[in-house]
Amino acid sequence: MGKDLVKVGLVGTGTIGGSVVELLKRNGSSINEKIDFKIALGRVADRDVTRLQALKLDKSMLTTEANDVLEDPDIDIVIELIGGLEPARSFITKALENGKYVVTANKDLMATHGEELLALASENNRNIFYEASVGGGIPLIRPLKYSLVADRIQRLVGIVNGTTNYIFTRMAQDELSLEDALSEAQKFGFAEPDPTNDVEGLDAAYKLVIMASLAFGKKADLENISVQGIREVTYEDIVYAREIGCTIKLLAIGEDLPGGLALRVHPTLVPLEHPLSSVLNELNAVFVEAEAVREVMFYGPGAGPLPTATAVLADVVEAARCIRFEVANGVVESKLKETEFVPIDDLKVRFYLRFLAEDRAGIFAALANAFSDEGVSLDMITQKRRVGSMAEIVLVTHEVNEKAFHSALNKVMDTSAIKPEPSIIRLLS
Amino acid sequence: MGKDLVKVGLVGTGTIGGSVVELLKRNGSSINEKIDFKIALGRVADRDVTRLQALKLDKSMLTTEANDVLEDPDIDIVIELIGGLEPARSFITKALENGKYVVTANKDLMATHGEELLALASENNRNIFYEASVGGGIPLIRPLKYSLVADRIQRLVGIVNGTTNYIFTRMAQDELSLEDALSEAQKFGFAEPDPTNDVEGLDAAYKLVIMASLAFGKKADLENISVQGIREVTYEDIVYAREIGCTIKLLAIGEDLPGGLALRVHPTLVPLEHPLSSVLNELNAVFVEAEAVREVMFYGPGAGPLPTATAVLADVVEAARCIRFEVANGVVESKLKETEFVPIDDLKVRFYLRFLAEDRAGIFAALANAFSDEGVSLDMITQKRRVGSMAEIVLVTHEVNEKAFHSALNKVMDTSAIKPEPSIIRLLS
Repeated sequence: MGKDLVKVGLVGTGTIGGSVVELLKRNGSSINEKIDFKIALGRVADRDVTRLQALKLDKSMLTTEANDVLEDPDIDIVIELIGGLEPARSFITKALENGKYVVTANKDLMATHGEELLALASENNRNIFYEASVGGGIPLIRPLKYSLVADRIQRLVGIVNGTTNYIFTRMAQDELSLEDALSEAQKFGFAEPDPTNDVEGLDAAYKLVIMASLAFGKKADLENISVQGIREVTYEDIVYAREIGCTIKLLAIGEDLPGGLALRVHPTLVPLEHPLSSVLNELNAVFVEAEAVREVMFYGPGAGPLPTATAVLADVVEAARCIRFEVANGVVESKLKETEFVPIDDLKVRFYLRFLAEDRAGIFAALANAFSDEGVSLDMITQKRRVGSMAEIVLVTHEVNEKAFHSALNKVMDTSAIKPEPSIIRLLS
Repeated sequence: MGKDLVKVGLVGTGTIGGSVVELLKRNGSSINEKIDFKIALGRVADRDVTRLQALKLDKSMLTTEANDVLEDPDIDIVIELIGGLEPARSFITKALENGKYVVTANKDLMATHGEELLALASENNRNIFYEASVGGGIPLIRPLKYSLVADRIQRLVGIVNGTTNYIFTRMAQDELSLEDALSEAQKFGFAEPDPTNDVEGLDAAYKLVIMASLAFGKKADLENISVQGIREVTYEDIVYAREIGCTIKLLAIGEDLPGGLALRVHPTLVPLEHPLSSVLNELNAVFVEAEAVREVMFYGPGAGPLPTATAVLADVVEAARCIRFEVANGVVESKLKETEFVPIDDLKVRFYLRFLAEDRAGIFAALANAFSDEGVSLDMITQKRRVGSMAEIVLVTHEVNEKAFHSALNKVMDTSAIKPEPSIIRLLS
């Protein structure tokens, strides 16, 4: 048996760090009762003295120097909540080298240096827990790691960005343009002042790297994710999607195919019968398809200080159990296999396409023939409305090779009858 | 460090047991790779020799005597998959007394003798894992136990019975009566030949006991659950529910109220915006409301041999980790607190009511007044169709004390203008 009292250090006391302290104050004794040994906050660091003082902790616990936490021999677990790559990476490295377990909510860091840091943890017979880095308060990493251990996961489909989901929900419910919905999201704190990472799909891509590595046991990386943001989706697309029984979501999709991993983030038409279609506002959900269990979904708040703090503390308890019971706790992630990647060009997908064409007799036939000549067969083609002298046309293809589709599209678009820059959205199969 | 090789014994080789063997054959080496030590099947018992032989295992592993597994000193973990109370209870008792960890999918047993068996496990410094007893392949017990450890769960709302959910889905989608939908469910294997336990809500009540004990850390029991089955729900109820933006589900609801636990199972109107409304067919989901995380939901197959086998094997891996690392693994459930129960009569609920009344002028006003006189205020009252000489009336109340509602109802129904036996369904708040 190891220690009866496990001491926790915290670096970074922003909104999530503050909530971790609050939850520990509120539920600390009930946590200790559940686990039958003691976890206590030892040392808390932040460069901002005002933030530290706002925590209303014993003064002796507070420091403006992260090193005071990382080098404190009494501290068993370090919670890193400063975010970003540096100095977070150096802090975690030092904590591991000093024999501490690490808990982090840092998705940027885990997506870019997770493998290296987990290997370092393994070398030091320690571990890094990062439930809070994906899906905020949704239990996700732990179920992927433990609950589905006997299964073979084939596909992950996730709504993992709250900002874009909030924007699409507002566009649909309040008939807003993307710009107006984004402004509203910013007003209510669901989007950053600079929303680039969310709107361009980068945030979702980071989370996909973390989830895919764990789910498939293979080394995923950012460079091999095909990413398309949501900027070009219009209110009309949402209306037309609904007419064909779909809603639009920004999805992060990871597939373990015979040729390797296929990883992509893009706006997607999701059929209304699919459980992901009813995930609204800022909420997140990850739908997992596996050989034996077939389908499971995890749903909840993908962000927010208190929900994220529950994930941080669940990790703290897991780390504490390792310390209490002197368990190394097999670092699953350090055994990731090298993998090939299947480029998005090689995937078979159904496409939704909206564009303007000359409003003249026979245009449907001409378009259908042009696509057909290029090997792209259409499931549906319909004229929506007149825009100036042009007709707005929406079509949906059958499943088609991505590359063949784009080459067909280029040829079809390359006629005087059609205005370029169609709106292209893939369908969830 | 404990053993490098953990040996598993299996008692009961029905559909789930067969799938456990199949999954171990298929994914055993990948499981061992993930955990970095070895789990292997040691001994398999079933009274039915034909079923044993069908497993195509080495003959030396097979036995028709459960005791050969329970008393084998080489066996570290016993998987109990015979179901029912006896001899399962005696088998598990013997396994624990012989120092073995136990994995079970037996909800009847865990709901009725779980506390006693978990206490026995604790005395023997062992544990019982029962992820598969609720929600089949859905990771549920583990997230409740570990992921939400730092939170305070306030309410559980679950669709935990696949048969009734399949019946309601078919009724709604194919415009079937309950009887016809039940026949169809039986034809496709989603309902037992004797569907009593499912249709009367008992199966859901068993699962609620298990979930509520764990989620609230309090001793729930069957006697304190108010249970109403689905037999009286008609196709009309489903149509009228949809007209007011709801779908009907059999819900198991557990609440941790200031006065104690309130536990109930009944058909419920679920608003279409609620994520539980889109859980269709035989699928299950549990929606958890907690103080910090607010809402999370776990969705997936609530039954089925292969999905359930994944849950069994996740538990086997957890037990094996305890053995490998010589960890007692805190038996959270043995620390359940005694609790009071809040009877359903004391809850505040909204009601949907359908009944036949005399088709005459002023009947709405008469009814509204009658309810109002008894302190029940109505949110909606509407006439649907004529049935013979009577008018079919549907009304929805505002939130009202359950007992007050029934007393009002009795008085209102006790007039010659109204045909008795109304259809009563509660609304999810």
